[in-house]
Amino acid sequence: MRKLIALALLAAVPAVAQDAPAPVTPASIVASAPASDWRAIDPADLLVMTLAPDRDGNPRQVVIQLMPPPFSQGWVGNIRMLAKAHWWDGTTVYRVVDNWVAQWGDGEDDEAKAKPLPEGLRVVPESDYVAGKNSPNDWCGYHICPDPTLGFAVDSIQLKSSYALEEGFGKGWPVARSEDAIWPTHCYASVGVARDLSPNTGTGAELYAVIGHAPRQLDRNIAVIGRVIEGIEHLSTLPRGKGDAGVYDDPALRAPIVSVRLGDELPASEQPRFEYLGSDTQSFARYVQVRANRNDAFYKVPAGGVDVCNVQVPIRRVPAP
Amino acid sequence: MRKLIALALLAAVPAVAQDAPAPVTPASIVASAPASDWRAIDPADLLVMTLAPDRDGNPRQVVIQLMPPPFSQGWVGNIRMLAKAHWWDGTTVYRVVDNWVAQWGDGEDDEAKAKPLPEGLRVVPESDYVAGKNSPNDWCGYHICPDPTLGFAVDSIQLKSSYALEEGFGKGWPVARSEDAIWPTHCYASVGVARDLSPNTGTGAELYAVIGHAPRQLDRNIAVIGRVIEGIEHLSTLPRGKGDAGVYDDPALRAPIVSVRLGDELPASEQPRFEYLGSDTQSFARYVQVRANRNDAFYKVPAGGVDVCNVQVPIRRVPAP
Repeated sequence: MRKLIALALLAAVPAVAQDAPAPVTPASIVASAPASDWRAIDPADLLVMTLAPDRDGNPRQVVIQLMPPPFSQGWVGNIRMLAKAHWWDGTTVYRVVDNWVAQWGDGEDDEAKAKPLPEGLRVVPESDYVAGKNSPNDWCGYHICPDPTLGFAVDSIQLKSSYALEEGFGKGWPVARSEDAIWPTHCYASVGVARDLSPNTGTGAELYAVIGHAPRQLDRNIAVIGRVIEGIEHLSTLPRGKGDAGVYDDPALRAPIVSVRLGDELPASEQPRFEYLGSDTQSFARYVQVRANRNDAFYKVPAGGVDVCNVQVPIRRVPAP
Repeated sequence: MRKLIALALLAAVPAVAQDAPAPVTPASIVASAPASDWRAIDPADLLVMTLAPDRDGNPRQVVIQLMPPPFSQGWVGNIRMLAKAHWWDGTTVYRVVDNWVAQWGDGEDDEAKAKPLPEGLRVVPESDYVAGKNSPNDWCGYHICPDPTLGFAVDSIQLKSSYALEEGFGKGWPVARSEDAIWPTHCYASVGVARDLSPNTGTGAELYAVIGHAPRQLDRNIAVIGRVIEGIEHLSTLPRGKGDAGVYDDPALRAPIVSVRLGDELPASEQPRFEYLGSDTQSFARYVQVRANRNDAFYKVPAGGVDVCNVQVPIRRVPAP
């Protein structure tokens, strides 16, 4: 008599009567997407963060995909530099706020005691929180600009939003635009750059991952530099901090960071291999369509829409080539 | 050199220069709301769920506010009956899925072994997932129907949504409507009734709380019966289940439920006292306005809108009268 509610993305599809056609679900679309619709993620664009094992000795690894151009590349460059310097090794996850963020780095208030940063980090201007609509990379052909060649174009009716003129996906990332700019959105598991008050924009040394409802008010106010694609539960289950602003008042609660490495610095056999479902494919368009209009054995009333952070771009681990 | 990102609701406001007017923030509006804008929550409308202490001996209490009429009252009635029968005592939190739900109750697959339910529980029809637009309770005068007497009416521009014709707040709850129905929305910390496949609607014995981004596709497909107003972290930090559908494969991981009581069954001194900021007040309208247009020492680019699940209705604990 266990009553289960439907699982998120990639859950098993309930069995159906043999004479009924199998219902189309987000999972069935992902499962049937041709190999050509999947795009490899370069290990050089991944950060592998290893936390100390939990108190039961279980390993804890968090994999973060870095944001592609044209977004946030000043901070992404700093982060690559920090990773190559092994700067995060020995730092901690020091702040966790429910329905908000888990934050890591040095976390030292006293500048005299702060861990020195590598030479050469850039100071990135606030204007780089967004990119120009006509930036070097062509985001049309993705869903941010409706593509008439796609039978199931993701249009503004399905992705209506309070936060932007238009929202959609580019290169597998949720994005939003105004008349004159385009920017990456803050969704669950997004990774951003903690900072002091404006005009400070942060270096990239102190990072946070979103562990709650999409805090879209941060869009255009803080740099989104990537997303956790595996192991978010190692951050979302951490105890919530009870000190000022959710910082752990008891230093013993801090989760030690053993190492943070760029994927391509790891031995070949340990390099993480992932693929995402291309957002310029028919499969992705159908996936969004069905996410917006669930109509299977569990769902009886299709929503008729979906918000950009509830689409959950399909990403999968694959064997080494 | 700790870089903090702005805290959610009710965080400390950053200090400003003495000659500048203090910025208006969601927190400052809540702090200055007159006592008459706050509405008491009857302890009889609260469920107090006590989990066994955590492995460090820390107490764990979760307080759930039950949904008011006209929504979900068939299930709410069953839940009151189950609480009065102390039915949940000795059951567990048995399923936790990241960015989805934590679920509790009997959790027994084998009907022969299932915990017997009290006599008299109602079978509630699927039609009760929504209420009629012109249901007995007048939801106009709240923001679901714009109120011309409010200077800062929450209008459709600020609360545009993919999920409904219109969204807003009634009696302090986020709600949505179509042409012919109105329903409570699934947001972070919402509590719903787990069920089998349609037309099963669940009894209310197996419940879940949302611990991730608002799963609005569940609206009108499953009963929302309340929300966690205190202690959600005791559910959101539980280990994620690795069994089928996120059920714990290791029964030792289940979080034991010591008791679930209606607030008014507790001794007077232990009855939980809470208030919410009335959604028919000027304070609430200004609060939504500022949530949609953050413009203080941290935020430089106001979003220009907010989604109904990101408003976070102010709720506070108050001393016993």
